[in-house]
Amino acid sequence: MKLYGYFRSSAAYRVRIALNLKGVEYETVPVHLLKDGGQQFSDSYKALNPTALVPTLVDGDLAIGQSMAILEYLEETHPEPALLPTDPAGRARVRAIAQTIACDIHPLNNLRVLKHLKHGLGVDEDTKNAWYRHWIDVGLTSVEAMLAGHPATGRFCHGDQVTLADVLLVPQVFNARRFECDLSAMPTVTRIVDACSELDAFVQAEPARQPDATD
Amino acid sequence: MKLYGYFRSSAAYRVRIALNLKGVEYETVPVHLLKDGGQQFSDSYKALNPTALVPTLVDGDLAIGQSMAILEYLEETHPEPALLPTDPAGRARVRAIAQTIACDIHPLNNLRVLKHLKHGLGVDEDTKNAWYRHWIDVGLTSVEAMLAGHPATGRFCHGDQVTLADVLLVPQVFNARRFECDLSAMPTVTRIVDACSELDAFVQAEPARQPDATD
Repeated sequence: MKLYGYFRSSAAYRVRIALNLKGVEYETVPVHLLKDGGQQFSDSYKALNPTALVPTLVDGDLAIGQSMAILEYLEETHPEPALLPTDPAGRARVRAIAQTIACDIHPLNNLRVLKHLKHGLGVDEDTKNAWYRHWIDVGLTSVEAMLAGHPATGRFCHGDQVTLADVLLVPQVFNARRFECDLSAMPTVTRIVDACSELDAFVQAEPARQPDATD
Repeated sequence: MKLYGYFRSSAAYRVRIALNLKGVEYETVPVHLLKDGGQQFSDSYKALNPTALVPTLVDGDLAIGQSMAILEYLEETHPEPALLPTDPAGRARVRAIAQTIACDIHPLNNLRVLKHLKHGLGVDEDTKNAWYRHWIDVGLTSVEAMLAGHPATGRFCHGDQVTLADVLLVPQVFNARRFECDLSAMPTVTRIVDACSELDAFVQAEPARQPDATD
């Protein structure tokens, strides 16, 4: 498999974690989101993924965009270790936590949106950073509420095994810390992220450890 | 089952379509997103869904938020008619189209974001509407590229059976038309939406037909 991504993309980071957890060998193909006006806009990349977003997973003839679609594909084709529980209610809870991050936090803060705020709406750097922190705060506050005190929450988001909820949570919290968001009101979130950080699959997926990483 | 939603919410609209396609009886519980400062912020609703977003599907003791998580739950618990293909590659394609809408278009344009643009960033009505149209244009242009000329595209997004891709596409195009977006460069998208509009499950899910609909 080949993973087209960018070291700082949190959507690519999710897929790296899942590939590592499942022990799937893959080749990294860097797509630099800033160089050359954004390599994701090249004709060759858009032929692979018309959304011009990263990541794209290529498995033989198949090219899949959208990290959640990729994660579900990996779950179906490489079921062990499972990253979704077996019961429909548990699967729904894990997917709801994951989608809260995938839909309600990340898309508001990704690079193209920040660029559009700056160049399309003409907002200044401080307003842009406040926007970023606002959606992280709103989103992670609701994730904290979904986790804290819920009987299914364990060492990880859902019980004591890693699931897709953790796979989504860790890159989002990584971004939150990079932008110096205040996470003091989210003790369950940070406890779970710390537990994940003890696992090699998460550590090896960190942005700074990728072949295309720069300062 | 009970579906907590709002007639104009396109995320609730998706779930209504799927419930109708699968022939699942459900009760509508209206959550008015504008009245009373937003009924989704009430303590009782947030106890059900901490994200304070609609929809929430309640099935017995289980409350599920996030429309994509709900749709996957319905697919697992009410598998007929299937809204995902059987092959992993096809499932990945359908989910990638669905997630492009669920992640890359809708969250940028939902009510809370438009309110934040207006009250948080102080943008005027014209700028807000231009923002709305911009993300629909970018997003549906890439959906058109995923569909047009792809060998798996049929009467619907993926072959000749309705899938989750169609379930997501129809409400998004409904919104696009409501905001008078130019869809002339998206003939495959509009052709498929027209095909869906011939099916009663889609028609009955339309916002204007819901018990909480107002002008």
